[in-house]
Amino acid sequence: MQIDLNSDLGESFGRWRLGDDPAMLRLVTSANVACGFHAGDATTLRQVCADAVAAGVVIGAQVSYRDLAGFGRRFIDIEPRALTDDVLYQVGALDGLARVAGSRVRYLKPHGALYNAIVHHREQARAVVRAVCEYDDTLPVLGLPGSVFAEVAERAGLRVVREAFADRAYTAEGTLVPRDAPGAVLTDPEQVAARLPDLVRVADSICVHSDTPGAVAIARRVRDALDAERIAVRPFVVGAGVDRP
Amino acid sequence: MQIDLNSDLGESFGRWRLGDDPAMLRLVTSANVACGFHAGDATTLRQVCADAVAAGVVIGAQVSYRDLAGFGRRFIDIEPRALTDDVLYQVGALDGLARVAGSRVRYLKPHGALYNAIVHHREQARAVVRAVCEYDDTLPVLGLPGSVFAEVAERAGLRVVREAFADRAYTAEGTLVPRDAPGAVLTDPEQVAARLPDLVRVADSICVHSDTPGAVAIARRVRDALDAERIAVRPFVVGAGVDRP
Amino acid sequence: MQIDLNSDLGESFGRWRLGDDPAMLRLVTSANVACGFHAGDATTLRQVCADAVAAGVVIGAQVSYRDLAGFGRRFIDIEPRALTDDVLYQVGALDGLARVAGSRVRYLKPHGALYNAIVHHREQARAVVRAVCEYDDTLPVLGLPGSVFAEVAERAGLRVVREAFADRAYTAEGTLVPRDAPGAVLTDPEQVAARLPDLVRVADSICVHSDTPGAVAIARRVRDALDAERIAVRPFVVGAGVDRP
Amino acid sequence: MQIDLNSDLGESFGRWRLGDDPAMLRLVTSANVACGFHAGDATTLRQVCADAVAAGVVIGAQVSYRDLAGFGRRFIDIEPRALTDDVLYQVGALDGLARVAGSRVRYLKPHGALYNAIVHHREQARAVVRAVCEYDDTLPVLGLPGSVFAEVAERAGLRVVREAFADRAYTAEGTLVPRDAPGAVLTDPEQVAARLPDLVRVADSICVHSDTPGAVAIARRVRDALDAERIAVRPFVVGAGVDRP
Repeated sequence: MQIDLNSDLGESFGRWRLGDDPAMLRLVTSANVACGFHAGDATTLRQVCADAVAAGVVIGAQVSYRDLAGFGRRFIDIEPRALTDDVLYQVGALDGLARVAGSRVRYLKPHGALYNAIVHHREQARAVVRAVCEYDDTLPVLGLPGSVFAEVAERAGLRVVREAFADRAYTAEGTLVPRDAPGAVLTDPEQVAARLPDLVRVADSICVHSDTPGAVAIARRVRDALDAERIAVRPFVVGAGVDRP
Repeated sequence: MQIDLNSDLGESFGRWRLGDDPAMLRLVTSANVACGFHAGDATTLRQVCADAVAAGVVIGAQVSYRDLAGFGRRFIDIEPRALTDDVLYQVGALDGLARVAGSRVRYLKPHGALYNAIVHHREQARAVVRAVCEYDDTLPVLGLPGSVFAEVAERAGLRVVREAFADRAYTAEGTLVPRDAPGAVLTDPEQVAARLPDLVRVADSICVHSDTPGAVAIARRVRDALDAERIAVRPFVVGAGVDRP
Repeated sequence: MQIDLNSDLGESFGRWRLGDDPAMLRLVTSANVACGFHAGDATTLRQVCADAVAAGVVIGAQVSYRDLAGFGRRFIDIEPRALTDDVLYQVGALDGLARVAGSRVRYLKPHGALYNAIVHHREQARAVVRAVCEYDDTLPVLGLPGSVFAEVAERAGLRVVREAFADRAYTAEGTLVPRDAPGAVLTDPEQVAARLPDLVRVADSICVHSDTPGAVAIARRVRDALDAERIAVRPFVVGAGVDRP
Repeated sequence: MQIDLNSDLGESFGRWRLGDDPAMLRLVTSANVACGFHAGDATTLRQVCADAVAAGVVIGAQVSYRDLAGFGRRFIDIEPRALTDDVLYQVGALDGLARVAGSRVRYLKPHGALYNAIVHHREQARAVVRAVCEYDDTLPVLGLPGSVFAEVAERAGLRVVREAFADRAYTAEGTLVPRDAPGAVLTDPEQVAARLPDLVRVADSICVHSDTPGAVAIARRVRDALDAERIAVRPFVVGAGVDRP
């Protein structure tokens, strides 16, 4: 058995720091790097790409609505065509920085409110899928199993990597409990670790957040728990990274 | 004899329109396309890339300080490292959109206050040159002859395309008269046309602005004048465009 | 009989110009001035305030979602508390500029997608009303008759000025036809003028847009039609402006 | 003997937190609150205003160049007229939020690169002074003794409050050592405290930064040292705050 661990990185902006990217890069196998629309100035993004390459972590583009003030966590009723173009802009920008760092953007993951919206919002889901198909249809996408986004992406011929969240509560329908609801974010590493075997069975990649309280401790606990269960932690992008020691 | 004609395009932003890109694309051979930092939302940039490809016009990245409110026309004392990274971000973003449109970014031209700053500002000139070298050192740069930027770029092994401005007044030292000085921008097509033979002798590419009063008329007059003088109008990027009819 | 004419002004931003504010100020009695979140740099806003004062036109704050790239025309699912605070920020900013110009913000009108959202969205409607109550509960608000916003504002004790749109098509339910639907925006001055007597009967203020094709011509036709029907055009804010000649 | 203690507050933005505003408000007498151009979303600004009122701390407007990505720390060669208008916009926005919180903006302090620029840059200094005179010429300004800004403000009839920095190194000419130079920011509380008697002799207000390492500890050490020297810590704005216990 094997699983990928992914985390949202590169979410600082100018003077404002967020998360401990170097620490997380020692624990995960895939880095969802911000692209400047919800977070991530160019210097931050370039640095996290360089650090990811050094750590053997695969780089993905975490694309977002254009909303620095809201950190991409507010639904925006953007026209599908504009959304497609905004996604292309973001992926290209990060790909350039990743290339300079010695790698490439190897997958795409929608961020925040966009991720949640396209669980159901077919037009926006299609807009994101269209951008990936136009940019490089060999890029896999990270998505929620059962989401409209996963369905549309698969139908378009994209590889869909099924994602589960280590530290987020789920509704009975399998969608994420909204972030502002009580109990939405799990902060107890033991509780997080106890759910892992179930998650590994239904997912290809587990997301560990980088900006929750005790994020690094949780990620480390997840790694330890997976090691203890003899579940190999490997990137889902074949040949793009290396097995983590 | 031959010359390239370039123009700044893609400078609309959201609801705000600026310039007549389709008309200019029928007249120029190289399009300096904005990259989102001084102008240019993703949909605008993608459209102008598509139109440029259809018109056989070469696409270049017009990189800028991050300053939508100032349209990139205000000097910003940004640290060189941050400037390098901002340039990389912009070139990558536009390159992705150009690729989707069936082409690539084929050269780089600094915009506005950055263009003027690096006539003298050695650290910022180096920062821009470093970005080009890191991204793709086969990309030529458009620059003012005699500028520090041209000197630094040449020393770094980049191809420097010497640029002259059809509709801007020059100081005795060969630098541009500041935009807010009287007489800085020529608006009489005949006056513009009369200077052309002199400009062609010292430049590889002539810039015709797209947002001055009567920009299209001036550009057309420039084309006609060049045709009358039997000066071929061809892109400076070999093999990337076609001779314009 | 009397009616107010209002229009959205101050919607330029930096290099980008939009609308003919001076021409519109000769025709309307109330100016809905942008506040910088969907449009309007500080210099533009100050100028339109000064011109409004000179023309005897009442200044109102046209508050918006924070979305320059979308011109405030995209619904944003912002938290009510943040929306209240964003509205306060905008009203205060414009009020300062209006005061320097010799006047004050005398009313509030939500812009674009926010205007449309609070026809139905009770939480956001309450958030806007709360901001007005906190800032100055003597300020009237412009709103769509029958909207949740109008209902909530009235219940909070605010004066609600009923608004009709001269150049926008209505649905059978009395809401605006979405801007991107066919026929949503009327461009024929005669068709616009013919609807006026009906609109005057149900509204206190008629909105003439400033950025539609032929906006000034339509506004002039509206003024002429009102004069011909002997309907006085006066601001709805008593004592704040003067009867237009 | 008496002195004012001021600190830069309200410098969070959306998801990004910076500084411990509540802790600082227990120690200082004047709060330089950001106005949204270098930091400070509306909710952050409103909260710090409310907390300042509760703590009896005087609110001032910390105005900046428009540069979120650079945190206002990069010189921008903005036209004086545009700078005046940007300052007015910012002061008005904060004043509205301060008023809702039960107070008002009681003074002005330029932030970051603008503060440093107008030590020498006469045109920008005049632009800032003009904004204060137009908005409310009874508002004092915090400025560096000997700066062009202080000179221009005094000549315009404004009250200039002489400021010293507890934790910043000075050059022999009395200007601040640039932030990126070695030793520019003092981080040892004892070293900071030892300089206080000298600073109190030449200044009306001492700035303690809120975002340096150990900022709160330094501010507390400064308070303790002033108490030990029996120097009263009182706001420089008479009647606007209360003596701190």
